[in-house]
Amino acid sequence: MVTVHEVARVAGVSAATVSRFLNGTARVSDEKRQAIESVIERLNYKPNVLAQNLKTGSSRTIGVLTQSLVSGYFSDALAGVDEALQGTGYAPLIVSGHWHAEEEAERIELLIARRVDGLVILSGKLRDAQILGLSQRVPIVAFGRALDGPRAYGFCLDNYWGACEAVEHLILQGHRHIAFIAGPSDHQDALARLEGYRDTLAKHRIKENQQLIVDGDFQESGGLLAVERLLESGQRFSAMFCANDLTAYGARLALYRRGIRVPEDISVIGFDDLHSSMYTTPPLTTVRQPLFDVGRSLGRTIVKMINNEPLDVDVPQLNLVVRESVRRIG
Amino acid sequence: MVTVHEVARVAGVSAATVSRFLNGTARVSDEKRQAIESVIERLNYKPNVLAQNLKTGSSRTIGVLTQSLVSGYFSDALAGVDEALQGTGYAPLIVSGHWHAEEEAERIELLIARRVDGLVILSGKLRDAQILGLSQRVPIVAFGRALDGPRAYGFCLDNYWGACEAVEHLILQGHRHIAFIAGPSDHQDALARLEGYRDTLAKHRIKENQQLIVDGDFQESGGLLAVERLLESGQRFSAMFCANDLTAYGARLALYRRGIRVPEDISVIGFDDLHSSMYTTPPLTTVRQPLFDVGRSLGRTIVKMINNEPLDVDVPQLNLVVRESVRRIG
Repeated sequence: MVTVHEVARVAGVSAATVSRFLNGTARVSDEKRQAIESVIERLNYKPNVLAQNLKTGSSRTIGVLTQSLVSGYFSDALAGVDEALQGTGYAPLIVSGHWHAEEEAERIELLIARRVDGLVILSGKLRDAQILGLSQRVPIVAFGRALDGPRAYGFCLDNYWGACEAVEHLILQGHRHIAFIAGPSDHQDALARLEGYRDTLAKHRIKENQQLIVDGDFQESGGLLAVERLLESGQRFSAMFCANDLTAYGARLALYRRGIRVPEDISVIGFDDLHSSMYTTPPLTTVRQPLFDVGRSLGRTIVKMINNEPLDVDVPQLNLVVRESVRRIG
Repeated sequence: MVTVHEVARVAGVSAATVSRFLNGTARVSDEKRQAIESVIERLNYKPNVLAQNLKTGSSRTIGVLTQSLVSGYFSDALAGVDEALQGTGYAPLIVSGHWHAEEEAERIELLIARRVDGLVILSGKLRDAQILGLSQRVPIVAFGRALDGPRAYGFCLDNYWGACEAVEHLILQGHRHIAFIAGPSDHQDALARLEGYRDTLAKHRIKENQQLIVDGDFQESGGLLAVERLLESGQRFSAMFCANDLTAYGARLALYRRGIRVPEDISVIGFDDLHSSMYTTPPLTTVRQPLFDVGRSLGRTIVKMINNEPLDVDVPQLNLVVRESVRRIG
């Protein structure tokens, strides 16, 4: 059987360089890389990281549990994790739990069975206690919950604060009749945004109108239906705060279909700042969740945790992005 | 050390059931699942798929090389691969090559070193010969290239045909001055779409106007700039065919900024049918690439290839999706 040392000898480089190349722990010069690649092909060398790892108990992979492979929200976070892991020698092993606690638990068992060195959990429906239990078996860094165990760390973004900023912006632009299209009522972030909406109205002594709060589902279709219900209710409103950007896209289309202009007739504000919100017509004013930064921070933190380094986590902040979907009135 | 058999005995199920649960090869009833989970936690059992796999030479993972973790185009394909692998006992190990041949080659080495049982390659810049070479080390199924080796299979969608359909649609709606915003000139799919545009004009004896063909980059920003150049050129056109949907989004915004209405003043047609194209204003007429189906087909095919079953590949087809961004003229 061909060994790393043989590959190194034929390629004229050190065995350490071949290892670095195979583990991806450091960049190897183009010249050396080409030499190694051609020798690997010529000798038909099959590196066996599994066998090496069995000795060290490490698979050099980080399990990443996302909730959706198709959502722009989660993809940004995945890309951030991926970037943070590049050059560390760890590869991400990505699975999706589809917002379903049992499926999440099953997928995590798959990851643990594959001996991931650490777990990154993006949101989801597992209880904190379950995650703390799992962290006895593998170090965990989670997004969307506050955790601070010996082998589990988690942070959230301040959704309440973000919602306050959005509603504050609408009020400063002269709006007082502000509708809210809510997210799923079993979703923490959605509830925090509703609370921010309510408290900011109260702070400005604007009486809450129950009829201006309608259900959505964090999807475009929910936003579309919500606007139809709002318009049919006959309630007066000059602006709407959508619990996320997808909701705002659906709301925008419902208004377009009725010939209602944004922002001339109705102002719209979203939450998330998905990449495409820069290119909606008009470009969407929204609260930016820096998901790529979140992912990068999670990726860096899990590596530090594995290496027993101080975590020193950089928690990204929300901020309001003012574009063209809100106008000043009155 | 705790064994599978001990977990099975304490949970009151068979060892085969515990294995099925750990490998995810079949669904286990809720009752049994809960029993197994609680025993695993109580005994602090650490399943070691790596050790099991070292015997069989299998890691029960499929490496998936994508080009972007943030693109809706690739995410749909990843979700399809993920669905196809569910219940097969294989988990996807996803890495990104970022449209960069050297990075792709490096990432594939990482996957092979982790003993993936098969590789799914989504597009990218590797040469066919490189992929055939790699397939001597691991079975490969690729999207975006036609391959038919003993351990490498690949298919493309018919981009030329799709482009012909799009332009044919515009011509049937009375358009004769049709602009084309191209994709990157080193991208096979982009070139096929340009060719389809040209041939369809020629088929209808419409003289090609070089000034109506402008460069784009498959991104929104390229579409935006292309429309600005088109409008500055003073050329007359009533419709534009955008080489992909992102390009169409950027083009749409550039028209919006100038107060040019879609489709009243200019008709726009895209290519891809990203999920969000249903919710643009107006909803975008486009050529649908069934990327989820593509991913599912790739996932099923790699498992068949690993199991030495007949491949019998189901290649998904493109189709035109007529929405509201094209109007009939003349």
